[in-house]
Amino acid sequence: MKNTFGSSVAVTIFGESHGEAVGVVIDGLAPGLPVNDEFIHSQLDKRRPQGTISTARRESDPFLIVSGVYNGLTTGTPICILIPNENKHSGDYTELRRTPRPSHADWTAECKYHGYQDYRGGGHFSGRITAALVAAGAIAIDALRAKGIKIGTHIARLADVQDRHFSDYNEDITRLNDMIFAVLDETAAAQMHTAAESAAADGDSVGGVLETAVVGVPAGVGEPWFDTMESVLSHGLFAVPAVKGVEFGGGFDMCSRRGSEVNDQFCIDGDKVATKTNYSGGINGGITSGMPIIFRCAVKPTPSIYKEQDSVDIMTKECKKLTINGRHDPAIIHRARVVIDSVTALALCDMLALRYGTDWISQHD
Amino acid sequence: MKNTFGSSVAVTIFGESHGEAVGVVIDGLAPGLPVNDEFIHSQLDKRRPQGTISTARRESDPFLIVSGVYNGLTTGTPICILIPNENKHSGDYTELRRTPRPSHADWTAECKYHGYQDYRGGGHFSGRITAALVAAGAIAIDALRAKGIKIGTHIARLADVQDRHFSDYNEDITRLNDMIFAVLDETAAAQMHTAAESAAADGDSVGGVLETAVVGVPAGVGEPWFDTMESVLSHGLFAVPAVKGVEFGGGFDMCSRRGSEVNDQFCIDGDKVATKTNYSGGINGGITSGMPIIFRCAVKPTPSIYKEQDSVDIMTKECKKLTINGRHDPAIIHRARVVIDSVTALALCDMLALRYGTDWISQHD
Amino acid sequence: MKNTFGSSVAVTIFGESHGEAVGVVIDGLAPGLPVNDEFIHSQLDKRRPQGTISTARRESDPFLIVSGVYNGLTTGTPICILIPNENKHSGDYTELRRTPRPSHADWTAECKYHGYQDYRGGGHFSGRITAALVAAGAIAIDALRAKGIKIGTHIARLADVQDRHFSDYNEDITRLNDMIFAVLDETAAAQMHTAAESAAADGDSVGGVLETAVVGVPAGVGEPWFDTMESVLSHGLFAVPAVKGVEFGGGFDMCSRRGSEVNDQFCIDGDKVATKTNYSGGINGGITSGMPIIFRCAVKPTPSIYKEQDSVDIMTKECKKLTINGRHDPAIIHRARVVIDSVTALALCDMLALRYGTDWISQHD
Amino acid sequence: MKNTFGSSVAVTIFGESHGEAVGVVIDGLAPGLPVNDEFIHSQLDKRRPQGTISTARRESDPFLIVSGVYNGLTTGTPICILIPNENKHSGDYTELRRTPRPSHADWTAECKYHGYQDYRGGGHFSGRITAALVAAGAIAIDALRAKGIKIGTHIARLADVQDRHFSDYNEDITRLNDMIFAVLDETAAAQMHTAAESAAADGDSVGGVLETAVVGVPAGVGEPWFDTMESVLSHGLFAVPAVKGVEFGGGFDMCSRRGSEVNDQFCIDGDKVATKTNYSGGINGGITSGMPIIFRCAVKPTPSIYKEQDSVDIMTKECKKLTINGRHDPAIIHRARVVIDSVTALALCDMLALRYGTDWISQHD
Repeated sequence: MKNTFGSSVAVTIFGESHGEAVGVVIDGLAPGLPVNDEFIHSQLDKRRPQGTISTARRESDPFLIVSGVYNGLTTGTPICILIPNENKHSGDYTELRRTPRPSHADWTAECKYHGYQDYRGGGHFSGRITAALVAAGAIAIDALRAKGIKIGTHIARLADVQDRHFSDYNEDITRLNDMIFAVLDETAAAQMHTAAESAAADGDSVGGVLETAVVGVPAGVGEPWFDTMESVLSHGLFAVPAVKGVEFGGGFDMCSRRGSEVNDQFCIDGDKVATKTNYSGGINGGITSGMPIIFRCAVKPTPSIYKEQDSVDIMTKECKKLTINGRHDPAIIHRARVVIDSVTALALCDMLALRYGTDWISQHD
Repeated sequence: MKNTFGSSVAVTIFGESHGEAVGVVIDGLAPGLPVNDEFIHSQLDKRRPQGTISTARRESDPFLIVSGVYNGLTTGTPICILIPNENKHSGDYTELRRTPRPSHADWTAECKYHGYQDYRGGGHFSGRITAALVAAGAIAIDALRAKGIKIGTHIARLADVQDRHFSDYNEDITRLNDMIFAVLDETAAAQMHTAAESAAADGDSVGGVLETAVVGVPAGVGEPWFDTMESVLSHGLFAVPAVKGVEFGGGFDMCSRRGSEVNDQFCIDGDKVATKTNYSGGINGGITSGMPIIFRCAVKPTPSIYKEQDSVDIMTKECKKLTINGRHDPAIIHRARVVIDSVTALALCDMLALRYGTDWISQHD
Repeated sequence: MKNTFGSSVAVTIFGESHGEAVGVVIDGLAPGLPVNDEFIHSQLDKRRPQGTISTARRESDPFLIVSGVYNGLTTGTPICILIPNENKHSGDYTELRRTPRPSHADWTAECKYHGYQDYRGGGHFSGRITAALVAAGAIAIDALRAKGIKIGTHIARLADVQDRHFSDYNEDITRLNDMIFAVLDETAAAQMHTAAESAAADGDSVGGVLETAVVGVPAGVGEPWFDTMESVLSHGLFAVPAVKGVEFGGGFDMCSRRGSEVNDQFCIDGDKVATKTNYSGGINGGITSGMPIIFRCAVKPTPSIYKEQDSVDIMTKECKKLTINGRHDPAIIHRARVVIDSVTALALCDMLALRYGTDWISQHD
Repeated sequence: MKNTFGSSVAVTIFGESHGEAVGVVIDGLAPGLPVNDEFIHSQLDKRRPQGTISTARRESDPFLIVSGVYNGLTTGTPICILIPNENKHSGDYTELRRTPRPSHADWTAECKYHGYQDYRGGGHFSGRITAALVAAGAIAIDALRAKGIKIGTHIARLADVQDRHFSDYNEDITRLNDMIFAVLDETAAAQMHTAAESAAADGDSVGGVLETAVVGVPAGVGEPWFDTMESVLSHGLFAVPAVKGVEFGGGFDMCSRRGSEVNDQFCIDGDKVATKTNYSGGINGGITSGMPIIFRCAVKPTPSIYKEQDSVDIMTKECKKLTINGRHDPAIIHRARVVIDSVTALALCDMLALRYGTDWISQHD
């Protein structure tokens, strides 16, 4: 389904970096959910370039709700949100057409679209399109919160600087959701800024790891074998530009340990079955256990750097040196975090609607 | 779609560990593809317990092609393959019903199916079901090979023993596909056996990392934003039991490096555009570049161990000690490898059929 | 999705007329639903050739439940049912390979499958495959009945003989479900037999119209714009061989009348909003109104007739006379009726699960 | 998928009658297809109220292509088209909220959306949304035409006035596509106008039957059993408001005839296998035969009439007389025709892309 994600709740994105607008259609959300413009704005702000380690391009991200909302509430019919493109600098990009940027989608888009793609500013592959996802995700995040489901993501690593682990999930998530640069340990945050600025000074870029926790998802959600909770989440997460790895719970590290060390042994927590550890990341057999869902996304270093790189002229098939002008972020991981939250929320809305029906999310009890 | 994966080429699995049979329906494969019983058997053999580090349960895995094959060739209509269950020991499992095994799907299945699940031997969540995937995958692997697309997976790590990296993809893949215990470095293979046997001696288990390379996929395959090559592959891979992480190309390690170090700079290889490195794992913007597709799957330690563990009685909500009898593998990673190959082949058949049409794979040129 | 119908509840069919078996996988049905072997048998009996107006081929239709049922109840995981093929007469058909039968799928299958299709007895296009649908449908029909949803179909017309209209839906449906030859008016039934026998005497065949009523579906089910109740039902109904038309409520006849004659004006029935008439067939804007769902399917005359017909040799592209030997039904409409009921039940299970969640159907209140 | 139709080529619609805009996203169309603004306008004009038998509401239907088109050609990424709503008269409708209009979606939408739906002017259920489908369909129609596939629809019946049958498909289709009121027989056209005006004079409305022919679709397209050509087309056609019946080829009339009368016997036409008659409507076994695809849609009388009708107050559950003010068409069938063409074209693009791959439609040979 290409640009559509989900079935019970489906999100469809469209737009190009230098076209009229980027946008999104969310279909299948229950009627009667509040649509909070302020919250959408605050989420878009988290994605917007900020401060010293982000590009100088100013994105004010006004948005227009075209359909599906009436009197501030969802109607149950498709919600279309447009985010008009402003402040475009097409001139910066045109010369790149024949000279693909390393580790961007320029060359693969050329292979797929035979040169008909809108190549200006990355076109449909621009990170700009994630603004639409964030707007859609804001409505989903709000709806989930009203059902006691909360999502929080922090920068677990930027370059080689590590954040501390989650300690109290509820508290940490609340804190993270108020932050623009979402790091649990302030000292680490400062070191991360330094690392990014140092890369920027070298005309280079950094990557990192985002870690997400979701609390409040009921046990029993997930559709094995093929629509496991991991399958559906990773499907959405790998759609986020720059994500090159996804791991749940103990992930890759757990693989060099023994079963007895990482099996999640059971206990009773109040009147509920729980586990003493959570190496499974809240998911076994593809189904939620009621423990927090934990996953990490590998975010590669921003491919746009100022350093000269080797490219080719795709017409003449000759080697060519490339220097990418324009404005680039030395890091995008702090901005990607709200995109991860948004995709997670949309995937959960889909899985929960599939499990409990269309109206479940709106039945405030 | 729960137990169905893919749309242009779709695979549906069914069955339980102690039921009549496990099975699979593959729908959408082109007509006229050879179905090689010998090859299916040889693939099933790779999944079958072997030697000292596998369970003593003997699985002979005879299979029955129920439909979709005529005169040894695919008809283009759904192929159903059954693998009857033999040598069942239901008695080993019944007492486990109220006492879920840590890090198995016992508890989450209970939450989802309310006790109606067939709990014997893991039921529908048993690794046994992967035999059906392997049978289906064999047909897909064969069909892809005829189009020049080859898939190979090795045990990149078992416990803390590392295999060497791929050197010559074509040669390494060919070698791996003839091996039962797929490791490129023979010394590492021996050490891995030792590590698994050592865990077995302790009544414990080990995990590891599988690394897969695919060569021959044309550039331009993948359907961004949401059906990216990474999204579709990871969707399938996370359906394989015990897989808790998936990373492409440079993956998580790449995230602590700088853009200038891991950007894949372009070069000309013969008359084709190529890249000097392949940190992108053959995929940019979710679309194949023509470089080898490279990914790694984290396989957690086998959760069935002989050591006593903490569980609970789900009825009385009391703590309870659990010792799992029966026969367990101290490692399943060497057997999971052919499942990964199979899922990869099925995902690629789907993506290629979507891109080039239903008949593409059968048009031998 | 080719041979799969539905998403929340999905049914996948496979098999060929002269292969090992025909079969079906039903995925997504709630756990804990009773699976009544007797009822499945009685439904298969309704599809089985009966009496003077059906082929002499004896189909005993034993079936094997391969998976998804434990202790007589659904487990919530995929149910696979096999119906082995017995009493095959491959010899009757082989000469037809190069000489397609008029108004069968022989020629179009050749175009699609390039000669690789299993052409024996119609192969995958044989009406035989509907036996699998009927077995699956039986489980769905049973589950719906427990929720107060009842489906009944009668032969509204056979050749030019008309049955009476539904009068009391509940009573009529109950009666129909006990009948093998489902006609409300006994006199009409006798005339229909005569009409069919008369055609048979001429080596010819007859068609007719099936009319279906469904009572008990809650108001508010249907997913406009594109998954309207009419869209989803017709999608399934047109998959039934020989169905060439589907109309809801007043259908085609209503189109030559005026709005004031066929608008369904509202009234209060007890404490519920109802309509005085039901020209809308229980559906407006693609969503159920709570009134009975009414539709009719046009069933074309059985294309297998004994009369000599014009065909062609597809290899030499020469005209050729064709006489179809073997045994044919002069009418299949009375047997198609239980297929229509089955598809309807499966479609409703899917729509209801999508609306109210996976478990809705099993929550007996 | 609710408001999305298709998979290889998918169309998603959104919008409400009195919201900001109605719109559509088309995803999966090949890159490099011409997007002809003039043709889109001319198609929208056919849907626009015209002359004496249409409402006086003036719809100028300007449209904005938001994404997916660059330099007048499709890029291969999602095309979003907006049609802003102008000339809204919200005041006409507000009092209708508690008093549903007979045979509209007012009451069923209330049941599904619990009162949160945008009820103004029919909201998301307004025929206005079809303007978006027509804009999307125009691109698809143009693309198909370049591949030799042509679609034409005429008003086969309005009230009780019948048009003549198709005689020369190619010629008739060409003529129809230039007409605003698409009737093959001019005398019939005049009588239809009279019939509609006569109903209008009585404050009433009329319905009719649309007949569509498609020429040029290759043999072998369709995905039995469940995505037959009939299934997919009817799925889309029943999404068009007021369509209550769909029949292919001989349809319902054929059902009272004998097999020998309506079997399509084969012949050789030039060097191609053809049939002497086309009661199958170009489809057997759900697969195209290469003969013209023929179907008819029953269009019910417009439910908005000036006559007083019985409704209820949905809050108090009391009977209430209803007179619908505002402007209504006595007939919409002449406007629905271009919607049918559009849905047909979109469904065919989907089926053809699935069969022959994403790029097929753009490979001009």
